[in-house]
Amino acid sequence: MRTIDWVDGAVELIDQTALPGRLTVLRLTTVDELVAAIQRLAVRGAPALGVAGALGVALAAHQPGDVAAAVRRLETARPTAVNLARGVRRVAARLPEGADAVLAEALAIRDEEIAAAAAMASLGADLLAELCGTRPRLLTHCNTGALAAVVGGTALGAVLELHRRDALGAVLASETRPLLQGARLTAWELGRAGVPYRVAVDGAGPFLMARGEVDGVVLGADRICANGDVINKIGTYAHALGAHRAGIPFVVVAPESTVDPDTADGTQVEIEDRGAAEVLSYGHAPQEYGHAPQEDSRATREHDQPAGVDGVGAVNPAFDVTPYELVTAIVTERRVIRLDRGERV
Amino acid sequence: MRTIDWVDGAVELIDQTALPGRLTVLRLTTVDELVAAIQRLAVRGAPALGVAGALGVALAAHQPGDVAAAVRRLETARPTAVNLARGVRRVAARLPEGADAVLAEALAIRDEEIAAAAAMASLGADLLAELCGTRPRLLTHCNTGALAAVVGGTALGAVLELHRRDALGAVLASETRPLLQGARLTAWELGRAGVPYRVAVDGAGPFLMARGEVDGVVLGADRICANGDVINKIGTYAHALGAHRAGIPFVVVAPESTVDPDTADGTQVEIEDRGAAEVLSYGHAPQEYGHAPQEDSRATREHDQPAGVDGVGAVNPAFDVTPYELVTAIVTERRVIRLDRGERV
Repeated sequence: MRTIDWVDGAVELIDQTALPGRLTVLRLTTVDELVAAIQRLAVRGAPALGVAGALGVALAAHQPGDVAAAVRRLETARPTAVNLARGVRRVAARLPEGADAVLAEALAIRDEEIAAAAAMASLGADLLAELCGTRPRLLTHCNTGALAAVVGGTALGAVLELHRRDALGAVLASETRPLLQGARLTAWELGRAGVPYRVAVDGAGPFLMARGEVDGVVLGADRICANGDVINKIGTYAHALGAHRAGIPFVVVAPESTVDPDTADGTQVEIEDRGAAEVLSYGHAPQEYGHAPQEDSRATREHDQPAGVDGVGAVNPAFDVTPYELVTAIVTERRVIRLDRGERV
Repeated sequence: MRTIDWVDGAVELIDQTALPGRLTVLRLTTVDELVAAIQRLAVRGAPALGVAGALGVALAAHQPGDVAAAVRRLETARPTAVNLARGVRRVAARLPEGADAVLAEALAIRDEEIAAAAAMASLGADLLAELCGTRPRLLTHCNTGALAAVVGGTALGAVLELHRRDALGAVLASETRPLLQGARLTAWELGRAGVPYRVAVDGAGPFLMARGEVDGVVLGADRICANGDVINKIGTYAHALGAHRAGIPFVVVAPESTVDPDTADGTQVEIEDRGAAEVLSYGHAPQEYGHAPQEDSRATREHDQPAGVDGVGAVNPAFDVTPYELVTAIVTERRVIRLDRGERV
């Protein structure tokens, strides 16, 4: 099953906001639908976004309307992962050749990501086996599995390849607040693959490393800068600090399509802020947490009053910047870049 | 309003699991009720736990039953914060003198924590003003306000004192997964006090420090070891790593009752694991997150199928250990310990 594909003249994709509760495939027939799906994270993950952008241009090319405007909307639907704008531009360059050429280019991007996933899994598994010891216990963050790509995935693809080789200890899946891609999506993929795993809150990662429960960190990237700085899901930098202090490898697995030589370093990247609502979805807390024992019904109810929260704001950077000095190695489908040995992107 | 107190022969406390939705005062008349309230975090925070344990022994002393067994249940209700067991033992030592002496000792602990809060607020605000510049923007984690003590609080008390002096910039409240004490309790206290604040996911803290949005970190402790290692809410260590790398002060504010000379260092402390359910309360995700646009109703519903999650586990350490080298200073009601200058506990 592919996370995203072109099927009978439309874009079909798994709605990742509905997982793990429901596995739903959306069929999107217009660019507006696709842009909305990208923005609400029905499709996410750098490789999958590249394919989504590419297929979006193909949609536009096959329909009446202002194709140039559609290309701009797709290109800017989300700012941080380089893959989206890059996929859009590459396919849009074929527009003068007609709709069939545009679709062919979009499908080429899809097929390249599929091929890249297999190569990254193999190279990544080799490196993890080399760096992290026998049957390593690996921490990962966000979701970098098939759901982040077309099939296979990036970092989680390498983890699953280690599992297929019977060379994996276990996985610690960092839940990845605010949208819980780790707890929802990575856990779902690991469960289906039969991989032993535990979920942890994001703040626990560095401590579990310090306590000796993690042999290596492996995760993806939304953009890799020319100097090796890694832009990835918020929380990545904290894990990198933890790995550095614990002296364990910190490995990034991402396709070449994520490497952006035009971005000098992390300070040049626009970090998307996704607004307060994602963070402040805690109204459920009183009901969800804890198990009120029977005696609580004796509460002095005359004291009850609405508590209220006024003026609540939040800062919600969706990504962060991990300086290259904290990265042991970057694995793409073509190469292993040992930043720890002075190799550079 | 006091977070916890002795009222007409019973323990009354604010049910912190119900905030911010409801401000409910529980009236607990038996040790079993109090132990249950402690274990489900209706009352939490090291100083408040010390008072809860003390008042629990007073409850036991005023009722028929096995007082020694009640003392043991209270003492071991939660393992990590030293205050609970210490408060219980100190009051239990008065049992031979009768129930009135026991209650007097418990109320003395309550009154000492009240006095300590005022002194910590003053000393802490002085130090933050000295270390963090004019009108600092301070990051805090978990809840260390009045709700963690009897009145006033520890770290948040110092922050509120800075606010009263008109010398505070703003507060960044780390949400503190899994139970969101930052987003629920600290946000609620800051809102009531009129302090400008924003909530952030825990994984964002170190990045926001790196991006220059934080002038200092100030938080509490559940236990301070003889060597200065700080045991505090999970996520504290990651913030300490971020502060260290960003070169900003990392200040711990906690009463002397939290300092435990009998614990040599952080490796000696039992870190409570509170089980998987707290972490895995994400079943609400599909409904809560994102706003599905209208066009989603066109989904190819024939693809729908239950996704399921099998074998989900979690690791849920409620606390972590911050090595003393990462701590700039510890402030108690009696002293400022500048660990960064080589001073020791």
